[in-house]
Amino acid sequence: MTKARVEKWDIFEASFDGPSAGNPYLDVSFDAIFSHKEQDIRVPGFYDGNGLYRLRFMPEITGDWSYETRSETPELHGKTGSFTATDARAGNHGPVRVRNRFHFAYADDTAFLPFGTTCYAWGHQPLVEQEKTLETLAKTGFNKIRMAVFPKDYPYNTNAPYLDVYEAVDGAHDFDRPNYDSFRHFETQIGRLGDLGIEADVILFHPYDRWKYSEMSEAQDYRYVAYVAARFAAYRNVWWALANEYDFMLNTKPMDHWDRFFQILEEEDPYRHLKSIHNGRPDANYDHSKSWVTHTCMQNWDVKRTQEWRGTWGRPVINDEPEYEGNIIQCWGNISAQELTHRFWITMMRGGYAGHGETYSHEEDLIWWAKGGVLHGEAWKRLAFMRNLLEEDVRNGLEPLGPDSEWPWDRLSGAADGDVTYIYFGEHQPVIWTLGLPREDGDYKLDLIDTWNMTVTPLHKVEAPANHPIRHGETFGESKPDAAFGVELPGRPYLAIRCKKMS
Amino acid sequence: MTKARVEKWDIFEASFDGPSAGNPYLDVSFDAIFSHKEQDIRVPGFYDGNGLYRLRFMPEITGDWSYETRSETPELHGKTGSFTATDARAGNHGPVRVRNRFHFAYADDTAFLPFGTTCYAWGHQPLVEQEKTLETLAKTGFNKIRMAVFPKDYPYNTNAPYLDVYEAVDGAHDFDRPNYDSFRHFETQIGRLGDLGIEADVILFHPYDRWKYSEMSEAQDYRYVAYVAARFAAYRNVWWALANEYDFMLNTKPMDHWDRFFQILEEEDPYRHLKSIHNGRPDANYDHSKSWVTHTCMQNWDVKRTQEWRGTWGRPVINDEPEYEGNIIQCWGNISAQELTHRFWITMMRGGYAGHGETYSHEEDLIWWAKGGVLHGEAWKRLAFMRNLLEEDVRNGLEPLGPDSEWPWDRLSGAADGDVTYIYFGEHQPVIWTLGLPREDGDYKLDLIDTWNMTVTPLHKVEAPANHPIRHGETFGESKPDAAFGVELPGRPYLAIRCKKMS
Repeated sequence: MTKARVEKWDIFEASFDGPSAGNPYLDVSFDAIFSHKEQDIRVPGFYDGNGLYRLRFMPEITGDWSYETRSETPELHGKTGSFTATDARAGNHGPVRVRNRFHFAYADDTAFLPFGTTCYAWGHQPLVEQEKTLETLAKTGFNKIRMAVFPKDYPYNTNAPYLDVYEAVDGAHDFDRPNYDSFRHFETQIGRLGDLGIEADVILFHPYDRWKYSEMSEAQDYRYVAYVAARFAAYRNVWWALANEYDFMLNTKPMDHWDRFFQILEEEDPYRHLKSIHNGRPDANYDHSKSWVTHTCMQNWDVKRTQEWRGTWGRPVINDEPEYEGNIIQCWGNISAQELTHRFWITMMRGGYAGHGETYSHEEDLIWWAKGGVLHGEAWKRLAFMRNLLEEDVRNGLEPLGPDSEWPWDRLSGAADGDVTYIYFGEHQPVIWTLGLPREDGDYKLDLIDTWNMTVTPLHKVEAPANHPIRHGETFGESKPDAAFGVELPGRPYLAIRCKKMS
Repeated sequence: MTKARVEKWDIFEASFDGPSAGNPYLDVSFDAIFSHKEQDIRVPGFYDGNGLYRLRFMPEITGDWSYETRSETPELHGKTGSFTATDARAGNHGPVRVRNRFHFAYADDTAFLPFGTTCYAWGHQPLVEQEKTLETLAKTGFNKIRMAVFPKDYPYNTNAPYLDVYEAVDGAHDFDRPNYDSFRHFETQIGRLGDLGIEADVILFHPYDRWKYSEMSEAQDYRYVAYVAARFAAYRNVWWALANEYDFMLNTKPMDHWDRFFQILEEEDPYRHLKSIHNGRPDANYDHSKSWVTHTCMQNWDVKRTQEWRGTWGRPVINDEPEYEGNIIQCWGNISAQELTHRFWITMMRGGYAGHGETYSHEEDLIWWAKGGVLHGEAWKRLAFMRNLLEEDVRNGLEPLGPDSEWPWDRLSGAADGDVTYIYFGEHQPVIWTLGLPREDGDYKLDLIDTWNMTVTPLHKVEAPANHPIRHGETFGESKPDAAFGVELPGRPYLAIRCKKMS
């Protein structure tokens, strides 16, 4: 018999028959030790209904693996098996990790620049709408999506979910009895996103709820977190987002519960997927410097503060809600496409990452931000252009020019990675520029980027204007330019320059 | 002999012959007591060169006034005279004062909404350019101008001043010997601004200097401040701006000198003109809550912080440099016209006042912000429109809707004065709106303001959308709208609405 073969960072899955009497979700537990040479990894299994138990594992090392299950339930104890993990094919880069403190890369060391969008409840819409969402995503440049396990009840979101997440009898949910079809569907969609190269930023809790999912007991919450870890963690494109707007649930889930959710994920996710927690009020950020938080996830419109947020928590910053493009009455969802594009550029040129959302009012309330479907706006095209452009050169991550409290980086945004420097002017429109350009002359490729019209055109060096040497009380020394050369610009807003050293 | 007649808030002036030997600027002092019924006011006199001494007085009360001079110099002691102060003519509103804590009004109680511009050294340009500046100002909507007593040395500003402010011999200035022609010219221009209805925000010190005006001795500084107070204070349109960017001069003028400058103005300006001091670095604001500061003058691009600044110092806020419209290399001087207009609206809709400047590069370095001349930009037209619009209804001053830390006023800008409310959407573009509109129905005039295209068009009431009543852990009570009615909007940026109750 040929040994099973599984690609590195793909999913090995085994299933076992076991008891179906009583409530196995509560009563039966099992896990397995997966072994590779000297390495042993504990992997939790999970119940999938109808007496079926599953074990999923994502190998991170190639070569031969074997496993043996452990359980107090005899049918699930001492089961063994083995497989060979093969090299990853092209396009399988593995899970995303933090790299270089403020940035991300896939496990194969390919840089990952998050360009996320948000469709909170797309997995709870009618299937035809879910298909539309995947079709739309396939033609955008988004490589991450925020999506909630639970359905959403909120303005524009009053329709019944495609599937209940727990069994419902006469409208009352039994939070001790998962609807296994619902979890199976959710993970199918995680997998399909993975096929599109999109990270699934899985939101575990949120307050926008009429089904009382957000009011489960403490024990039910903990069991749920462990369950989703056991089910979903083997998907390489999973990220854990503990909450959308955790601070609006502090009345039923105090801070120590949130800490514990993180700890459960640390215990039950063998692959250490990225973990974050998202605030509601601007002053209600979780302490993202806690050891179990991998990156700062937040919402804040005030994007010129990005460097401050990097400094506060020492983590990569993903500002997933710098307000959304749209025209609804809620102000977090009615900025112009140009403004959202502008905020992406400001954020990334200050060393952070931003998130997209679209909230155009629609007569059937089909709004991308919650339901997915189709896009109606303009920012997504500019963000795809931006991603393509930055991925040409960014390898280690964009570090802001600065310090941010000092001239001119308190007003402007600029960042560099190795030999490439970008300066984003935004609302500024100088006709000549030097600051941030190289201090030593050499062979540089210089381009003008029109962030809105999506064009890249060559720029040419011009003589750098000299500084004015005299100011009262300080002499700035000789009159000398700030850079080895300058560039002339067309004097309109929303432009950037790229300067790349040609070796 | 008919008694002299002087209009209230105009200037009564008397001159006296006195000693010209030695250095009267240092050696001779005199003042006068002006008396009106029970009121006695001390008014300092000043030397104007060639043995001529002057006494200027701005009566603030109508009726009969008399004066008697005092001096240790016999020729200047015991001189007496009298005049009658008559009612002010239409258009003479008197000096501007703080009113309603965060706002301004003329002495006759007419609201004053500052719409200032900056031409630091316009009074030091060739006369033909100075005439152009006055011609330009006459067709704009600006009612205040920042202007420095001393000439400016800075990029684009290297030309020699029209007149030296102190006597210069072989290029070295003698700061004990004013050039009286220079002061006479400066006050002539203050008067001409007054004729145009423009307040002269007179900047006493600045660091951009090659003549060493900013390095006078402490005693010379104090004498200079007292001198300008004695000369200029009788002009009703004078405001005292102690500095442009005082913090760049702390090495030669430590903080206690700045305090003392304020105190000298308190002592030597009988009319208590407005007094402020302007910072350079964003974190270097003077303590504007000190008793002698009448209003906060500052530069800061981050205009959504306006309410914070009101709160910090408890004074009216004039943000004179929210960055300037232009295209020069310096980032404080290269934002788009649309952005500057936007920043004016944000500032005023958060209870503050903003300042204009224009810095388009010019082949002869004729740039409005320093030299005046002609305007090349687009913002000034929108600001004139804005001023006209607001002056239709604003009487007491625009108080921000809020609190600013709370929804939606953390993101949006809105303000009200009595029966009129404005909401400025800026980068936000909702197609329907309720928040900030009246909670009780009635007879309201509703208008859409396009801040860039300068149009005002009627809006009509529509049914207010209901709030969504449910959120986890909190029930917002019944589903009820935020206002008695809503308005539909065209869904594009840079719009405002005006809602006015018709009694």
